[in-house]
Amino acid sequence: MLAAMGEFDLIARYFTRPVARAVLGVGDDCALLQPSSGTQLAISSDMLVEGRHFFADVDPGALGHKALAVNLSDLAACGATPRAFTLALALPQVDEAWLEAFSRGLLSLADAHGCELVGGDTTQGPLNICITVFGEVPTGQALLRSGARAGDDVYVSGTLGDARLALDALRGRIALPAEVLAQARQRLERPTPRVALGQALRGVATAALDISDGLVGDLGHILKASGAGATLNTSVAIELLAACAHPACTKDLLAFENRLGYVLAGGDDYELAFTAPVLAREAVQAAAQQAGTPVTRIGCIDAEPGLRLTDAGGHRLSSEFASFDHFA
Amino acid sequence: MLAAMGEFDLIARYFTRPVARAVLGVGDDCALLQPSSGTQLAISSDMLVEGRHFFADVDPGALGHKALAVNLSDLAACGATPRAFTLALALPQVDEAWLEAFSRGLLSLADAHGCELVGGDTTQGPLNICITVFGEVPTGQALLRSGARAGDDVYVSGTLGDARLALDALRGRIALPAEVLAQARQRLERPTPRVALGQALRGVATAALDISDGLVGDLGHILKASGAGATLNTSVAIELLAACAHPACTKDLLAFENRLGYVLAGGDDYELAFTAPVLAREAVQAAAQQAGTPVTRIGCIDAEPGLRLTDAGGHRLSSEFASFDHFA
Repeated sequence: MLAAMGEFDLIARYFTRPVARAVLGVGDDCALLQPSSGTQLAISSDMLVEGRHFFADVDPGALGHKALAVNLSDLAACGATPRAFTLALALPQVDEAWLEAFSRGLLSLADAHGCELVGGDTTQGPLNICITVFGEVPTGQALLRSGARAGDDVYVSGTLGDARLALDALRGRIALPAEVLAQARQRLERPTPRVALGQALRGVATAALDISDGLVGDLGHILKASGAGATLNTSVAIELLAACAHPACTKDLLAFENRLGYVLAGGDDYELAFTAPVLAREAVQAAAQQAGTPVTRIGCIDAEPGLRLTDAGGHRLSSEFASFDHFA
Repeated sequence: MLAAMGEFDLIARYFTRPVARAVLGVGDDCALLQPSSGTQLAISSDMLVEGRHFFADVDPGALGHKALAVNLSDLAACGATPRAFTLALALPQVDEAWLEAFSRGLLSLADAHGCELVGGDTTQGPLNICITVFGEVPTGQALLRSGARAGDDVYVSGTLGDARLALDALRGRIALPAEVLAQARQRLERPTPRVALGQALRGVATAALDISDGLVGDLGHILKASGAGATLNTSVAIELLAACAHPACTKDLLAFENRLGYVLAGGDDYELAFTAPVLAREAVQAAAQQAGTPVTRIGCIDAEPGLRLTDAGGHRLSSEFASFDHFA
């Protein structure tokens, strides 16, 4: 129970919506969902903490968007169709303007994906946002981390590194032209979960995940789960930093090593990394087109464990360079 | 990522268990659940915050138990069979002894109910525990808050008020004999979710919920959802404070008004309050016996809105007495 406004009033005012597909929404002891026949339920849970996942002065609308986006991104990585979510929220105090903006950001993204808020909890405490999201995937068709095979291509969706670039600029570690920062900041604060792409890749991709901690680290989870290694072409990868394509940005703003570092180890990208057989190249491009999300082939899966980086000529880069310790 | 131990190590060491009925558990982007045919999924989420829901020095094993128990209690209130849960955990630091005890308390209760930990999140931050639990209920058979009808009996399971009695004793507001406090403290720190009773009441009870904020307040949710009122017999209700039945406790330890206050407005009880038709009295007792949980008939549902309290002779108590403002 919160001080200025009772728990139940707060839920009613900001978070209760007419129940659509769910059988029973906010207000009873449990929400009730009727799973579609022939589907499995994909479930993911993420907790966002002030000072760790966002700045205290973040725009609450952007925060509402991002809190759900990171969860939808997990559903995308499984190829699941979003269906519903619960929201648990600890608030230091009831700030109606904040709640209004937060709920608008959250529910706009939810509506765009037909993902219903079906229940949750509110309490007083240090700001903490915990969302658990539910999606449906036809039984046996979920994209997992474990299916990559030697010879498969490695792809990523969209662009990489811009969110981390914005974070470093906001922390004063680098200077960026205002327009470039504004563009990069959108990627940091309002990431786009690749939900349509994930669904389009069912039956095409052999393994997938979403990039939250940086491509190299996250791809490592696919490699570990699949018992494989990979080689990435850095001359292709380095073009994925969208900021460097902005007219206000000259590419020499960032040295090659730094640009590559942002792309390969930036984090907070919420793009999909996935693998697919060479024979599926046309199918991958068709899926990308259907989803309206560009994808780039950046390497291949090897039988040999470990991750190798090469230049345009296929020569291996030194392993010191590949460690990205300066990004830890 | 936590300082002393990486996020992934922490999950692997304390929270990864062999997947049983879930298709895919901790470690991929999503957990996958295969719902049983002909069932609906009941979902509930609760967030526990230090200083608000538990003391900083609480036994971590008890905390692990309680964090799941309050969620299982919501499933019980719907008549659902527990199936799986996710755990999101913000920790100020990695304390291995604390995590060991917390996970043991949590997973023992989970095992006792066949409820699998299928996923979640860990992060650094002020201590916060968010659990989302999933249960199954045959389609259309969930117990809701809205089904109470005038003439129905009102029941509660187990005993009421002891958790709040322990809380007041621990805060130094009242003095209790040590044995009485120890017994009451068990109710506060290790509540028993009435899962078997909830399932046994499907098709018998007309409405149900679990008592977390106190009987009067929570029963109010049933009355509101059902468009009805109720009359409770205080001479029956007052016997529900288990502490007063302890040999070390004389009943005059607490004045009548206070004892009744604990029973009717104590909170943190996690018993079920439910309604059932008069013709179902034998069926209610059979369900209680099947579940091994005693239930007590404490009143009846009226067409007239509002809650009325009567003495043993059926005379109405004054409304001032019934407000329990001293418990707010």
